Amino acid sequence: MSNVFLKLPTPSPVGGEYSAYVKVGDRLHISGQLPREGGVVAVLGKAGRDVSVEEAQFAARLCAMNALAQIKVALGDFDRIEALGHLNVYVASAEGFNSQPKVADGASLIFKEVLGERGAHTRTAIGVCELPRGAAVEIDIVAYVRD
Amino acid sequence: MSNVFLKLPTPSPVGGEYSAYVKVGDRLHISGQLPREGGVVAVLGKAGRDVSVEEAQFAARLCAMNALAQIKVALGDFDRIEALGHLNVYVASAEGFNSQPKVADGASLIFKEVLGERGAHTRTAIGVCELPRGAAVEIDIVAYVRD
Amino acid sequence: MSNVFLKLPTPSPVGGEYSAYVKVGDRLHISGQLPREGGVVAVLGKAGRDVSVEEAQFAARLCAMNALAQIKVALGDFDRIEALGHLNVYVASAEGFNSQPKVADGASLIFKEVLGERGAHTRTAIGVCELPRGAAVEIDIVAYVRD
Repeated sequence: MSNVFLKLPTPSPVGGEYSAYVKVGDRLHISGQLPREGGVVAVLGKAGRDVSVEEAQFAARLCAMNALAQIKVALGDFDRIEALGHLNVYVASAEGFNSQPKVADGASLIFKEVLGERGAHTRTAIGVCELPRGAAVEIDIVAYVRD
Repeated sequence: MSNVFLKLPTPSPVGGEYSAYVKVGDRLHISGQLPREGGVVAVLGKAGRDVSVEEAQFAARLCAMNALAQIKVALGDFDRIEALGHLNVYVASAEGFNSQPKVADGASLIFKEVLGERGAHTRTAIGVCELPRGAAVEIDIVAYVRD
Repeated sequence: MSNVFLKLPTPSPVGGEYSAYVKVGDRLHISGQLPREGGVVAVLGKAGRDVSVEEAQFAARLCAMNALAQIKVALGDFDRIEALGHLNVYVASAEGFNSQPKVADGASLIFKEVLGERGAHTRTAIGVCELPRGAAVEIDIVAYVRD
């Protein structure tokens, strides 16, 4: 694909009684991804209090790279993606923090960079009070696959 | 369709690196919609503190009308909708506010009014701490389309 | 199916202007389910303050059983499920509570127990500030059905 220099992380093992991905027909669901680097959640805390917009964007970028790593395991090859579909971005947010879209752009730009036009997606970005392991951002995806 | 008097808003431009809608096969995803009126987010704050149930319902209604405006751009015509599918309603909620379903009905009723039987949908309504631009409500949709 | 001893609850009537389930093609959406027992929301409050991890897990288990009850109404028979698809688990969370995945396992294990291999699913677990009726947990599902 377009960016051969982007080094994807090792896909994280799931942290519970679920699957990292499920493919049914042309639909590929990816479980919620945290901002892991080297297997460790690298950005902790709430945007607007513990974490700046830039740090939260970086967290979203890490989430996206972890999602791409899962997609690669599921499909073997990004060329099989027909369209990214829908992206949910959950931002752990302190009182009064309302820049979830800026944070979410950290993830969206990675998908566009790696997948090109097929990385186009709809998106919902919301602020939540707490995320697993204290992560600053979590994302999930439903993507569509060519067979 | 059933209500020729409902005036839809001008579809909002997206506020980030994503698409307003994505259609893949018979699936139409609509990105998170805020309660915009004339392009401006018209209902700000948290339900149960800054915003009454009635004001939050009105916000949900505006979100639904903005979603319908996006569907109209995507499809040209509501007659192509086979079923609305699933609606998520995110309500910015103050401590102890638990009437998210009443708020969400503001959106659900618009979809039924405009789409008739094909507006039937499943729904998840939750209370979140913060939404983009300080909006009181955000919604998203996956709809199904006849080809 | 695998567990003939699991007694499913009576499906809850919807609490608003939406449908308990919508089936379009092979997709079955289930609306947000609360931890109801005998029709009453049985686990109230926030995990990490009012509700222990174990109580929240029990709430998630009740949500899953209510979702299975809806699936049974929709399909008549669990054998028609091809794959569970995606599960969202929303946990009402007090400040600093980050064990949403442990809570969510309460739901995931029920799906595996009842549906066997076809109960495999992706999952997103997040902490939210408030849920309808003060419930501790809410879940929703998109499942895939054999025709």
